[in-house]
Amino acid sequence: MARSRSRKKTSGIPPAELRFIPLGGFGEIGKNMLVFEYGDDLLVVDSGLKFPDEEMFGIDFVIPDVTYLLEKKKNIRGIVLTHGHEDHTGALPFVLPQLDVPLYGTALTLGLASGKLAEFAPAYEPKMREVRAGETIELGAFRVTFVAVCHSIPDGVGLIIETPEGIIVHTGDFKLDPTPIDGRLTDYNAFAEAGKKGVRLLISDSTNAERPGHTPSENIVGKSLEQILRLHRNRRIVVAAFASNIHRTQQVFDAAARFNRKVALLGRSMVSNVELSRKLGYIQVSDDLLVPASEAERVPANRLLVLTTGSQGEPFSGLVLMSKGEHRHILLGQKDLVAIFATPIPGNEKLVSRTIDRLFALGCEVIYDREQHVHASGHASQEELKMMLSIVRPQHFVPFHGERRHQHRHAQLAVEMGVPEQNVHILQNGDILRIQRGKSQVRGTVPSGAVLVDGLAIGEMKGSVLKERRELAEDGILILSIVLDKNGRLSGEIRLESRGFIHSSDATALYEEIRKAVLKVVGSAGEKDLLEPENLEIRIRGRVKEVIRRLTRGTPNVLPMVTILERTGTTA
Amino acid sequence: MARSRSRKKTSGIPPAELRFIPLGGFGEIGKNMLVFEYGDDLLVVDSGLKFPDEEMFGIDFVIPDVTYLLEKKKNIRGIVLTHGHEDHTGALPFVLPQLDVPLYGTALTLGLASGKLAEFAPAYEPKMREVRAGETIELGAFRVTFVAVCHSIPDGVGLIIETPEGIIVHTGDFKLDPTPIDGRLTDYNAFAEAGKKGVRLLISDSTNAERPGHTPSENIVGKSLEQILRLHRNRRIVVAAFASNIHRTQQVFDAAARFNRKVALLGRSMVSNVELSRKLGYIQVSDDLLVPASEAERVPANRLLVLTTGSQGEPFSGLVLMSKGEHRHILLGQKDLVAIFATPIPGNEKLVSRTIDRLFALGCEVIYDREQHVHASGHASQEELKMMLSIVRPQHFVPFHGERRHQHRHAQLAVEMGVPEQNVHILQNGDILRIQRGKSQVRGTVPSGAVLVDGLAIGEMKGSVLKERRELAEDGILILSIVLDKNGRLSGEIRLESRGFIHSSDATALYEEIRKAVLKVVGSAGEKDLLEPENLEIRIRGRVKEVIRRLTRGTPNVLPMVTILERTGTTA
Repeated sequence: MARSRSRKKTSGIPPAELRFIPLGGFGEIGKNMLVFEYGDDLLVVDSGLKFPDEEMFGIDFVIPDVTYLLEKKKNIRGIVLTHGHEDHTGALPFVLPQLDVPLYGTALTLGLASGKLAEFAPAYEPKMREVRAGETIELGAFRVTFVAVCHSIPDGVGLIIETPEGIIVHTGDFKLDPTPIDGRLTDYNAFAEAGKKGVRLLISDSTNAERPGHTPSENIVGKSLEQILRLHRNRRIVVAAFASNIHRTQQVFDAAARFNRKVALLGRSMVSNVELSRKLGYIQVSDDLLVPASEAERVPANRLLVLTTGSQGEPFSGLVLMSKGEHRHILLGQKDLVAIFATPIPGNEKLVSRTIDRLFALGCEVIYDREQHVHASGHASQEELKMMLSIVRPQHFVPFHGERRHQHRHAQLAVEMGVPEQNVHILQNGDILRIQRGKSQVRGTVPSGAVLVDGLAIGEMKGSVLKERRELAEDGILILSIVLDKNGRLSGEIRLESRGFIHSSDATALYEEIRKAVLKVVGSAGEKDLLEPENLEIRIRGRVKEVIRRLTRGTPNVLPMVTILERTGTTA
Repeated sequence: MARSRSRKKTSGIPPAELRFIPLGGFGEIGKNMLVFEYGDDLLVVDSGLKFPDEEMFGIDFVIPDVTYLLEKKKNIRGIVLTHGHEDHTGALPFVLPQLDVPLYGTALTLGLASGKLAEFAPAYEPKMREVRAGETIELGAFRVTFVAVCHSIPDGVGLIIETPEGIIVHTGDFKLDPTPIDGRLTDYNAFAEAGKKGVRLLISDSTNAERPGHTPSENIVGKSLEQILRLHRNRRIVVAAFASNIHRTQQVFDAAARFNRKVALLGRSMVSNVELSRKLGYIQVSDDLLVPASEAERVPANRLLVLTTGSQGEPFSGLVLMSKGEHRHILLGQKDLVAIFATPIPGNEKLVSRTIDRLFALGCEVIYDREQHVHASGHASQEELKMMLSIVRPQHFVPFHGERRHQHRHAQLAVEMGVPEQNVHILQNGDILRIQRGKSQVRGTVPSGAVLVDGLAIGEMKGSVLKERRELAEDGILILSIVLDKNGRLSGEIRLESRGFIHSSDATALYEEIRKAVLKVVGSAGEKDLLEPENLEIRIRGRVKEVIRRLTRGTPNVLPMVTILERTGTTA
């Protein structure tokens, strides 16, 4: 830090500026990653993933492009985590081994992160540094204080970052829940104190910037659950919820105990998160409340509650397997009530809807988002965002964690709350926000973007490969294998194979026409074509496409593979 | 009709029963098609399409399977349309020419249907019979009375169908709007009169059966629009709405006239629907209010309102083209306010969201569903559904137009309203509901399902082809062309081509390993393999997949094509 400061004073070199560079989470919800830079010091906040859009065929997830961090690797003082959700930690197994810098976070956050690291990067030994809310650490030019915030996972923090250019407040993902399940309130005081000292820049959560009013407290979910248990004393109850929402899990345990039901856990992440949370003390539950899933069918219906993953209709989750009658241990039917304690994340609506339909078809009663308080968001709504703005009273403002629409609304709120319009910046990933002597401006960019990760390899999936997948999905492919002898005469049959396109057995006339077209092109092949069969292939492709278009209106990919047998002897 | 009745009295033959058979729209929203059958008479109601799910690669739309209707073609007395939406009329171009029966509907409904028929089945001459609400027609054993209902398109009707087994009431798609834009209320009286006479069966719209309360009147949209025009007098205004919601279009025209703005129409369906509606008298608008899109840029910003398609983010719609800066006539920027007067239909959320984000990126102000009354549904909510049940007082009840979840909730409402539980039937497409002497039972099925229509051909798309497309989309394909001489020795090179899988230039080591694996299999090929190269192909596929899995974790489709050159002479 001293080095950086002294540099600022050096007259020949231009004084250092503070740079804020988002690498993910701006103009999108997911793959959050922020970079703060001052002189030779870089501080990275979070390293998240994002789930692919439906047109990203075969992609498992998407992570930020960290080219910029790799270039400045030796200057990175650490990665600080705000909380344990995948959109803030999921890229660690791919990013951390490359950067090999210390990782800071609270106990639960690090616990969840090390689980991911152990699974996806087993060879790497992370340098973990546990911190607590209220604690302050120094990372180069940055003095980082961790501030407790409420969110839909325990142990979340915001950050107060003291820099040579003033104080930065980063809210993290937060809400102002007045009655959190663990009693750990968002630390208004810490934010207010920073506000009193003067905050240069506020970076605040925009997820719910479109929602008027306040986000309801997580405890309304517990109340709904109690009501359901009271109304349906004789049914078996199945509750689907996010495995990471450990407060909700605690509420399920509490309600089950009160109504004298055992709890069976389904779903790998549900089981492992409960295990970790119990070990670290984030969940209180007595052993005799729990019953193994394999023994659940032996518990009387009115004495059992099943807590499962699958609230988003995830294909191999507990709830989806049960809805298809494919679960090893639990068979659902008319005696059962299923309550889905979550709302569908945008993009998951159809998966959730189909799951509900299948449950109804099994005869279950189903309770879901349309009718009950089954979910409370983890993100602040407009009144809470204004409250944060009024406590922190920032000079400059950047809305983060949102698509443009959310950022835009949040920016409007900031202007309403008195932040000067020219100090409000709607940034996109890769933008550089520069702060120097109290002034801010957006100038320049660093490489940024989406790195697509699939089973193929850990690394960038080429756009061209993805484009081909899209084309194959839309139209299928027709492959022709053609063998010519050294004189250009057909050797053997023309082989036709299709995938995702009408099969030869269903369209013999079409395939006959295609064969004729190929023969015609082959018949006209000259000496030159035998030396450069690529030209022949191009001509065959053109003719075959023409025939198909004429006869079917279809436009499959056409791939002719011409093999010319060795020209032994006859020609030079 | 007389014939059917006399048959019922014939002692030797079992008395006729009334059959109700849904061919579409049950357990789904879309491709509505109902069949009523009594003796030798069939009555078909609606013939709709459905848009494909995202996993139906390359499919344009989905229509009902009409195998049953083709079998009974000569007994079909006609197709009756309830209204002009595509989910009720869109399959006509594919179904009507095959059945060639008269088509009944109100003026606007037939006008919209004939547009579709002219476009997609230009060779066919439909037999159209225009009817009005209040009119009664006889179709074999069925006496059908058309009853005015409010919906999100003008001229909608429900049906009161007198049959030898009693009166059936079919609501069609409806709401009970107390202040419809055209003043044409849902005809409570007609439904109540049927109820007084005694209704054997009610078939009622379940779309909004999950929504408590009443659906708001369409006129709230006009009020929101006026408010927007009042608040933003200096901006250019762009309104996106459904082209088929002609009442909403009328409200846009009225508001524009009041605020002294010209209206430019964008989007093919918007232009053609306004044209048709003006011709038939469903829209009142003076010529001088309208300005051609090509001249819109010459009108001052505060004097123009652009009415466009694209409220669902449809790829080539007016709004989407504008949001991408690709529209020929209109260039959007900071002076513009875009109001999307619709909510996203489930499945379209992401398309809509991306459109909004692009508009924000252009600098536009955007108003959409989160914040204003920009949409009023065309379907009745719970209180209206109960009202319908209490007016009609049916003996038997069938919820239609809904996924299982909607049907299930609607069935619960019917039971609450006093319909005996055993008389409430949650049907699926193809089920046969039989009514005889006042008793109902579900027994037997007819062929039903989804016929997928794509550019390939009008007709059924095979499930296997679709499955292949899905596999190609997920993993891509690797194709190997291998030529062996008559002795099983490799002739020429092993050709490797990939689509949607890592290219050879990016993975030379992998491709080298694959070649080695192929050579090994080929080297071990015996005499038998040369007679049956399929076995050789299976072994090559297995080995290559193994290599790929080991080196990349990928699982592409592997397609080896082995050609054996003519075995001239050497063997028998």
